[in-house]
Amino acid sequence: MLRVILVEPEGEYNVGFVARLCKNFEVDQLYIVNPRCDLNKALEFSAKGRDFMEKVVVTSTLEEALRDLDLKISTSSIADSKGDMLRKSMPPWEIVKLMENRKTGLVFGRESVGLTREEILMTDIMVHIPANRSYPVLNLSHAVGIVLYEIWKSTHLRGGETGPAPSQ
Amino acid sequence: MLRVILVEPEGEYNVGFVARLCKNFEVDQLYIVNPRCDLNKALEFSAKGRDFMEKVVVTSTLEEALRDLDLKISTSSIADSKGDMLRKSMPPWEIVKLMENRKTGLVFGRESVGLTREEILMTDIMVHIPANRSYPVLNLSHAVGIVLYEIWKSTHLRGGETGPAPSQ
Ligand SMILES: Nc1ncnc2c1ncn2[C@@H]1O[C@H](CSCC[C@H](N)C(=O)O)[C@@H](O)[C@H]1O
Ligand SMILES: Nc1ncnc2c1ncn2[C@@H]1O[C@H](CSCC[C@H](N)C(=O)O)[C@@H](O)[C@H]1O
Ligand SMILES: Nc1ncnc2c1ncn2[C@@H]1O[C@H](CSCC[C@H](N)C(=O)O)[C@@H](O)[C@H]1O
Repeated sequence: MLRVILVEPEGEYNVGFVARLCKNFEVDQLYIVNPRCDLNKALEFSAKGRDFMEKVVVTSTLEEALRDLDLKISTSSIADSKGDMLRKSMPPWEIVKLMENRKTGLVFGRESVGLTREEILMTDIMVHIPANRSYPVLNLSHAVGIVLYEIWKSTHLRGGETGPAPSQ
Repeated sequence: MLRVILVEPEGEYNVGFVARLCKNFEVDQLYIVNPRCDLNKALEFSAKGRDFMEKVVVTSTLEEALRDLDLKISTSSIADSKGDMLRKSMPPWEIVKLMENRKTGLVFGRESVGLTREEILMTDIMVHIPANRSYPVLNLSHAVGIVLYEIWKSTHLRGGETGPAPSQ
């Protein structure tokens, strides 16, 4: 079971695109904590992910959105800052083996300021998508797309179809 | 050398997000064929990818945008339709080995109707991102993000850091 959780998203296009991505990559649930944009306008960007907008669960706190989950994963554009264990992160392709048979939640932060330390501390692990060291900050829905793509690849394609071998 | 080419993009948010992704994943050039939206409005969505918008090359035909390239790659949400060789496709992680030492162009289509058959025929290979069989149609900039991420991973991370082995 895979739940995508957006914390206080600010852009309706991002919310709509995430709903579409949930459909593209066969997510089970979309939760939004305290939305800061108009969810009706988000519909316009959701294309055939419309049903995720229609059944979206809105909560007022992250705690509620994390209830009942076995594995809680936060995401950040900042990886492995030295001396800050809170920021020790995993790449997206390593989380799949941890997800097996676990009700999993993926938590994504605000466009403006990401997730707070307190929010990150509520999760078990943190995922960072590696990118340009001088600018690894992806737009919210593009980060969601890449993480969901990696999970989908590992869970829906047979071995040998998922990418280059480590020795390449 | 990696060039991203958008053919007649219709949404300014998509163009801006692609400029940002070009920065995130260290692309060399952004070309736009006959834009159908306001490139000034796109700036708003480009964040620190702003310089890609400032140096964008606008052409009136795809032919011009493909000039000087050694390897031309089209993209499509439709894969391997039986009986239509035009649509035989590769997944994104397989193109990297072909790109070595080649000036490469990645061609992405219109939000509304993708690329025409004629445009696909101007390329050497076609890439399809695998996704939900009943709805594999990604939004334009999210498709760009995933293809660029796969290429970046293969070219910037050492073996063993790029994902699961085929035997897993
Ligand atoms: N490279 C990356 N890896 C993982 N998640 C990322 C990412 N880039 C962006 N995101 C996701 O997109 C969200 C919005 S980007 C937040 C940027 C903000 N300026 C900050 O300093 O945090 C982030 O909270 C995270 O969920
Ligand atoms: N998905 C695809 N779309 C278009 N052409 C493809 C293709 N996959 C392979 N091709 C190759 O491209 C050829 C058609 S177009 C020709 C393109 C190339 N510049 C050339 O001069 O050969 C086909 O004969 C086929 O061999
Ligand atoms: N699964 C996928 N794999 C590769 N490219 C994709 C993709 N989904 C979308 N794209 C890219 O995003 C562009 C816009 S989506 C185009 C959809 C259009 N309704 C059609 O029928 O073609 C496509 O032209 C392609 O460049």
